[in-house]
Amino acid sequence: MTFLFKKVVIVGVGLIGGSFALALKRADAVGQVVGVGRSPSVLARAAELGIIDRAATSPAEAVDGADLILIAAPVAQTGAILASLAPLLGGQTIVTDAGSTKNDVVAAARAALGARIAQFVPGHPIAGREANGPDAALPDLYQGKKTILTPLAENSAATVEHVATAWQACGAIVHRLSPEQHDRIFAAVSHLPHLLAYALVDQIDRAPESDQLFHYAASGFRDFTRIAGSSPEMWRDIALANREALLVELATYGTQLEKLQTMLAAGDAAGLEALFGNAQRARHAWLKTIEAAERPNRNGGD
Amino acid sequence: MTFLFKKVVIVGVGLIGGSFALALKRADAVGQVVGVGRSPSVLARAAELGIIDRAATSPAEAVDGADLILIAAPVAQTGAILASLAPLLGGQTIVTDAGSTKNDVVAAARAALGARIAQFVPGHPIAGREANGPDAALPDLYQGKKTILTPLAENSAATVEHVATAWQACGAIVHRLSPEQHDRIFAAVSHLPHLLAYALVDQIDRAPESDQLFHYAASGFRDFTRIAGSSPEMWRDIALANREALLVELATYGTQLEKLQTMLAAGDAAGLEALFGNAQRARHAWLKTIEAAERPNRNGGD
Repeated sequence: MTFLFKKVVIVGVGLIGGSFALALKRADAVGQVVGVGRSPSVLARAAELGIIDRAATSPAEAVDGADLILIAAPVAQTGAILASLAPLLGGQTIVTDAGSTKNDVVAAARAALGARIAQFVPGHPIAGREANGPDAALPDLYQGKKTILTPLAENSAATVEHVATAWQACGAIVHRLSPEQHDRIFAAVSHLPHLLAYALVDQIDRAPESDQLFHYAASGFRDFTRIAGSSPEMWRDIALANREALLVELATYGTQLEKLQTMLAAGDAAGLEALFGNAQRARHAWLKTIEAAERPNRNGGD
Repeated sequence: MTFLFKKVVIVGVGLIGGSFALALKRADAVGQVVGVGRSPSVLARAAELGIIDRAATSPAEAVDGADLILIAAPVAQTGAILASLAPLLGGQTIVTDAGSTKNDVVAAARAALGARIAQFVPGHPIAGREANGPDAALPDLYQGKKTILTPLAENSAATVEHVATAWQACGAIVHRLSPEQHDRIFAAVSHLPHLLAYALVDQIDRAPESDQLFHYAASGFRDFTRIAGSSPEMWRDIALANREALLVELATYGTQLEKLQTMLAAGDAAGLEALFGNAQRARHAWLKTIEAAERPNRNGGD
């Protein structure tokens, strides 16, 4: 049997890396999957679950003969991981990542890989669950979901296409953006909402009548704050990695709140209804679009 | 058969009023349910669905002999509805409402009812669905959910207890607060999040690259903005009715965002992690508490 990839290395065998491995295996797209990670017990669990075929005994042994390496570790560690791989990297090995920010990853990759930068294709799968670790990994996590690649000028078309093919084998729809576009977009639609949700829960928790406030919080609050259940370490890193774009979005949001404050203070019923109505309409239109786009589909995309 | 209520009148036979009627009927707690509303077709549909036994032919005929009247109409209409009922109200009829704000309802009720104010017990069931109208009504909408009563000094204990019994028959857990406490609490845990969600969706929609932003928005954004799918008219009224408390919460939230802005600009990793971590911990503790409290339970009590 000829596989799309003979040997794939997963650095970080948790939800994201583990689901990638399971999906490639289910698609018969990989000969062997080798796991790399800091915790022997997590690697052992990943092997037990069939996510990896074996844990690497050393970085050199892991990288030797690999077609593809996916870095699925916290984004702040990407530079150090790439630096450790760089001297071991053969000319045929492609490296990609799954980090939520891309400008910082690209900068770290350039510093770590130097002349080998053409072998690194930055990526970001838009999928997740609240649970983490190898036990949370699912072969269909990426099915019908978007994966964004932010190719570099140095990447060959074939290199980028090879990474795209891996994600398509996982069921993902591959999109391409520049790292700058990526970070600007996710500052607005993901990183800002996370900050806003954390800020509200923290506000309620610090209020003098905090117990009573939480006592009466209901399902609207639960959904609004669901993302405030996310890992503080991970979101600290993302917020700092993307802080320039995030500060722009935060300033725009501050202007929105001042506008609402002015309308409320002035009793401007028409202004409030117009803003609420525009948001409701826009959200409804958006929901219809994504519901249509997320129908199971293995065709890939742009 | 002796019923808890011989005749219940529902003003507004949509989700909230309709579910109340269905729940009372299922509990065999009501002899007949009479519907009042502005739209004959909605009343006809409510009759067809078995929510009401009949539509009232006139306000006087509706009120005649009623034990309990529930006003489940948009909160801005409560004053006008109470004013139309006031001259018709017998001494044995108790009136309650289901509005999301209470200070304004109490003021409107005092103005409309005058000396009959003792017959009005303000209420607020904490339950809802995204759908509206009689077709969305469910007999178990209130099962295990909180209903808040904000009794007035003029209400007798027996009057308040009678309203509490009706909600308990619907499966709700009855809590008591003052109207001021109620409005302060819901400004923080419900009205503010609604404003924040509307503000974010409006911001994304007005951005120059709006189409692209919506294109990449995913499940975190969907949950965060779910409440921005709510009725703009209803939330305009709630925001204005509770604007004093809401302006206080909005100002506190502005301070939270300034704090985050300062931390981001300064690259304060420890500060960001502490705020995110506090929010995550608080939300996790809250979820555990509500999950325990929302186990089906018909004991009522606050």
